[in-house]
Amino acid sequence: MAMPAVPYTLDGAATLHQMLRFHWDKWHAQPADEREAIVAEASEVLGEMEATGKSAIFSLLGHRGDLMVLHFRDSFDALNEAEMRVNSLRLRGFLEVSHSYLSVVELGLYASTSKIHADLAEKGFAPHSPEWEAGAEDVLDRQRKAMAPRLWPDVPPHRYCCFYPMDRKRGEEKNWYVLPLADRQRMMHEHGLIGRRYQGAVKQIISGSIGFDNWEWGVDLFADDPLVFKKLIYEMRFDEVSAIYALFGDFYVGLRFGASQLGEFFAGKSPTWEAPPVEDSSERP
Amino acid sequence: MAMPAVPYTLDGAATLHQMLRFHWDKWHAQPADEREAIVAEASEVLGEMEATGKSAIFSLLGHRGDLMVLHFRDSFDALNEAEMRVNSLRLRGFLEVSHSYLSVVELGLYASTSKIHADLAEKGFAPHSPEWEAGAEDVLDRQRKAMAPRLWPDVPPHRYCCFYPMDRKRGEEKNWYVLPLADRQRMMHEHGLIGRRYQGAVKQIISGSIGFDNWEWGVDLFADDPLVFKKLIYEMRFDEVSAIYALFGDFYVGLRFGASQLGEFFAGKSPTWEAPPVEDSSERP
Amino acid sequence: MAMPAVPYTLDGAATLHQMLRFHWDKWHAQPADEREAIVAEASEVLGEMEATGKSAIFSLLGHRGDLMVLHFRDSFDALNEAEMRVNSLRLRGFLEVSHSYLSVVELGLYASTSKIHADLAEKGFAPHSPEWEAGAEDVLDRQRKAMAPRLWPDVPPHRYCCFYPMDRKRGEEKNWYVLPLADRQRMMHEHGLIGRRYQGAVKQIISGSIGFDNWEWGVDLFADDPLVFKKLIYEMRFDEVSAIYALFGDFYVGLRFGASQLGEFFAGKSPTWEAPPVEDSSERP
Amino acid sequence: MAMPAVPYTLDGAATLHQMLRFHWDKWHAQPADEREAIVAEASEVLGEMEATGKSAIFSLLGHRGDLMVLHFRDSFDALNEAEMRVNSLRLRGFLEVSHSYLSVVELGLYASTSKIHADLAEKGFAPHSPEWEAGAEDVLDRQRKAMAPRLWPDVPPHRYCCFYPMDRKRGEEKNWYVLPLADRQRMMHEHGLIGRRYQGAVKQIISGSIGFDNWEWGVDLFADDPLVFKKLIYEMRFDEVSAIYALFGDFYVGLRFGASQLGEFFAGKSPTWEAPPVEDSSERP
Amino acid sequence: MAMPAVPYTLDGAATLHQMLRFHWDKWHAQPADEREAIVAEASEVLGEMEATGKSAIFSLLGHRGDLMVLHFRDSFDALNEAEMRVNSLRLRGFLEVSHSYLSVVELGLYASTSKIHADLAEKGFAPHSPEWEAGAEDVLDRQRKAMAPRLWPDVPPHRYCCFYPMDRKRGEEKNWYVLPLADRQRMMHEHGLIGRRYQGAVKQIISGSIGFDNWEWGVDLFADDPLVFKKLIYEMRFDEVSAIYALFGDFYVGLRFGASQLGEFFAGKSPTWEAPPVEDSSERP
Repeated sequence: MAMPAVPYTLDGAATLHQMLRFHWDKWHAQPADEREAIVAEASEVLGEMEATGKSAIFSLLGHRGDLMVLHFRDSFDALNEAEMRVNSLRLRGFLEVSHSYLSVVELGLYASTSKIHADLAEKGFAPHSPEWEAGAEDVLDRQRKAMAPRLWPDVPPHRYCCFYPMDRKRGEEKNWYVLPLADRQRMMHEHGLIGRRYQGAVKQIISGSIGFDNWEWGVDLFADDPLVFKKLIYEMRFDEVSAIYALFGDFYVGLRFGASQLGEFFAGKSPTWEAPPVEDSSERP
Repeated sequence: MAMPAVPYTLDGAATLHQMLRFHWDKWHAQPADEREAIVAEASEVLGEMEATGKSAIFSLLGHRGDLMVLHFRDSFDALNEAEMRVNSLRLRGFLEVSHSYLSVVELGLYASTSKIHADLAEKGFAPHSPEWEAGAEDVLDRQRKAMAPRLWPDVPPHRYCCFYPMDRKRGEEKNWYVLPLADRQRMMHEHGLIGRRYQGAVKQIISGSIGFDNWEWGVDLFADDPLVFKKLIYEMRFDEVSAIYALFGDFYVGLRFGASQLGEFFAGKSPTWEAPPVEDSSERP
Repeated sequence: MAMPAVPYTLDGAATLHQMLRFHWDKWHAQPADEREAIVAEASEVLGEMEATGKSAIFSLLGHRGDLMVLHFRDSFDALNEAEMRVNSLRLRGFLEVSHSYLSVVELGLYASTSKIHADLAEKGFAPHSPEWEAGAEDVLDRQRKAMAPRLWPDVPPHRYCCFYPMDRKRGEEKNWYVLPLADRQRMMHEHGLIGRRYQGAVKQIISGSIGFDNWEWGVDLFADDPLVFKKLIYEMRFDEVSAIYALFGDFYVGLRFGASQLGEFFAGKSPTWEAPPVEDSSERP
Repeated sequence: MAMPAVPYTLDGAATLHQMLRFHWDKWHAQPADEREAIVAEASEVLGEMEATGKSAIFSLLGHRGDLMVLHFRDSFDALNEAEMRVNSLRLRGFLEVSHSYLSVVELGLYASTSKIHADLAEKGFAPHSPEWEAGAEDVLDRQRKAMAPRLWPDVPPHRYCCFYPMDRKRGEEKNWYVLPLADRQRMMHEHGLIGRRYQGAVKQIISGSIGFDNWEWGVDLFADDPLVFKKLIYEMRFDEVSAIYALFGDFYVGLRFGASQLGEFFAGKSPTWEAPPVEDSSERP
Repeated sequence: MAMPAVPYTLDGAATLHQMLRFHWDKWHAQPADEREAIVAEASEVLGEMEATGKSAIFSLLGHRGDLMVLHFRDSFDALNEAEMRVNSLRLRGFLEVSHSYLSVVELGLYASTSKIHADLAEKGFAPHSPEWEAGAEDVLDRQRKAMAPRLWPDVPPHRYCCFYPMDRKRGEEKNWYVLPLADRQRMMHEHGLIGRRYQGAVKQIISGSIGFDNWEWGVDLFADDPLVFKKLIYEMRFDEVSAIYALFGDFYVGLRFGASQLGEFFAGKSPTWEAPPVEDSSERP
């Protein structure tokens, strides 16, 4: 069996979703001034992260967690630092990390892959020869630069976030990974057409997690109206690539609020949303 | 493969089921006057919610929880507020949120979808063109208004509730999402005929949770005799859409009681049922 | 596809299995006189339940629980009362409800269903017409009265109990719910023949849990020799309905003892078995 | 469909595996003299059990438990007594029963079953007639006596134990329970040939758990070199009955040590192995 | 059915992965001098292990653990000693072993197996005859010596580690264990060709866990750039043996740091990486 072609990917920000369960019982037992000091410290530390545009806090709906903190970083080392800063907070004594997801922002290049392979073959390069690899890397590098804003995103400033992980099925009969690239490319194209109709209403960030976490991809959707999550995902469920080949993990839905509103949250209120100020990224390194 | 048509849905109330486990050991250790104060606060807060007709309390049978609190709201923000009000209760120190379910009340328009598509095609509109979308939205909007009472329901005033989530199967051979709309419409019609024979005995509210929670739909049944849950669901299990395409999650069965009876409940008694007074909804905004 | 016929069932006692894990560490830390008072209260309350013949206590083998309490009642309200009485015990502070099962004692009428349908059809009644429903209900009512002792049983007075839940498979190819009634009736008949050879050695109570709990049926076996559980179930595993269509959940095996022996149990001894006295049921309403 | 023949089994010792997690944090917090007294009591009680040859202690590798205690007994009552003696230990305050397995030592008589059935048929007895059952029981009883040492074993005195539960597959296409006895007998024979080549290096005890626990069989392997577990099980994975029909649960690997070494273990050392003295079984009843 | 040939394996170091969750809440509550003493003890004990090159500490990303400690040892006894030394640390009071994996470093000899079998057959030896076994053992022993450095590795000195367990599928249609050796050999060869292209960028250690843990193999990847984990595993997912026959468990990704940096870690910082000094292995026995 000839191995089906592997699509090229562009890889960007190291990404960590932290789902946190809050121990309200321990919290209620804490004196008011202690609570105040604990919240002040957390607000400051998380506020600093938030101001970079690369971290964000969400109030999760349901029992799988009270808070979700999303981090985009330049490296796994920087993600680990973010985790450790949270661990070092006094607030950590009231938080349990109920779930998490580790991934890297990814753009899958189904169409480019076919084109790159055809171009390299036309030049007479043997697959995986040094010239072949160099030629491909050359194209990918140009695309990486062009796509930098999408590969190294800020957290989109919308009220609602929907996160879920997914796999492509490897069943005994229906197996994504044995299909010819052309078929996968066509299905991904059709899949993308649906997404295009939701542009403006929903912002999507795909991250790859093969080798990092238990599913193959993570999907983040951001919107100002949570109903579009349902509409978009329901519509997509009928396209071929999802209907036949998609497997889904847990769904998390959160409402974004700012680090300065943590006091409100831990006082048992649901903070309203106003986009937090983000430092001008043109001044960032 | 031509993508099978996606059925239109009408979406209503944001819905949250909260399953709560009560820590009887901590409770028994609490002094009587403390318990009284804690119950009084909870009764007042939950009583206010209950009086709107949009929240209800159930005593759950079995180990998956002691209480279920069901909330219908206008938005996810309002659901999060309801959650936070529960979190802010002193009673929260004795409650663990063992499970939850997030969804939106939904009416699936299998029959209308075919008709709308046929009408739009007859007018010569291209699928997903602006005229097509506007034409469909026009019809849906009229239906949304006509169906408002079913989309924005009060909790039906019955003693027993049965809640469970479900999926449509996407197996390697049996896959709901690749069937032509006409087949799905026929099966849903036959499914509905069974439900119709139980009208009067059972009130059903379907909510959609694609993009919100781990299953595709939530089903709430309300009745004055719990045996009808078993009869209805057993009979439906033999219809084509359920026998072949339905997958079920955990089942929760609860007995409704009023917020004013919480003291009885936490004293270790099973409160009897009398429908709580609900503010006249004609006076509500 | 014509929907396969749904077998009639007769429904009896509301049934709850409570599996309880005991916190020996907390218990050992309790002063002796406290322990004595706690046991006395529990013995009295559970002893009252036991005396009706409708509740029974078992010492569970293995890690899924220390105790199993089985309740047969007239209604779900009465089951909830039983639960709440256990919740109100001081002993509850040392018990965790590790599992439970909610169901209704059920007799499946495979053979009668064919006969009733044939008789009604012969009379010219249309399926589900009022005359059809009334005719069926008439027969079922007679059977319900004749079967009352099996529908409303006392807990059989045997030393060992084996409980497990089960489903009928709805696989992509092997699907119980699409088979014609005649085939299901034949397989259930063959299944019953095996059970008949074990009469005297084992007493079986089937309860239905569709709509109530996560599996479709619960099976309780009672015997004076636990080896018959293994022999019976192994033999049945080769009959068609079990080999192909049965799916099983967790198995629980317990040794019965009386409420008056709870002191012995909580002192870390395994109480021997003697059938507890049960009030003469002829005097019960 | 004619029901495939059920193989006869010989049933012996009631068997309980207890996997125990030790709470090192609570233990470290205990004063030294308390620890000493607690260990002394546990050593004495478990030492008595061990001296009968019917109980043994293992230090488990990995997170699924710190200790495994294996009990062979004459009855389920005696197993429950063993459990309750462990529950009554002061050490129980530091132990959590993380897992367990309940089964009965079993010899499956695939070859004998064919022969017994043939002999009974030749005598003209109808299947399951009283003469048939008596004739079979007569043969089984002789075998039961001959096999007594294997049915009522002591724990084999080897350093390493590997325990895992297993099922025979009942898939939609590959289903052990619908195969003719002759096929099952042939596959079990080939399976046995592999085991025979490991005789001397590994001692195997099979126990049946249909009706007792969540899998159909438990497998215990005992050896002085743990690598033989891997070699034997890997080799068997390619034989037909395992490759196609075997499903496996959790694997537990432990190192045996004696009750008199418990002090060493709870001091955070890994006790070396020397076979504990066992009372002469010829003097036991 | 003729049983497919079992590939020979060479077995080396006994391997234990310990995933540890740290209780930050308890830690924050500890006085500073206590924390210092606890860290000093842990640094010393783990530092000694680390200095042999056979143990290493990683900061895990995500919720499945805070730390991973990897141990290579000469025997299961030595692994148990390592576990017990960790258990005896005062730090153990703040650690929970959230997961673990037990295995043995393994080299699968697909190509050699065919050759050995052919040679032995040519000499006229019957399979599994004493001459056959001796002849095979002779070849394996030579290979064992030649491969010693790979069978008894030090932990490779790279910043990132990715660990996951895996199985070969035994589905109803796609079943690795019924394929002829030649097919398995070809697929493993193609699989290896991909790995070869990543030599230099990633170091891979395979360990076998059949009979030891719940999956058949463990895979450890070590690299200085974590992106290569994703690239390598994604590319492999399209080769035949992975696409069709691979099943994967949980993925763990960690950042290595030294035992002397534990103080930094428990102070809530993410230690940077510098390869710890390892005793010259030429001086080790």
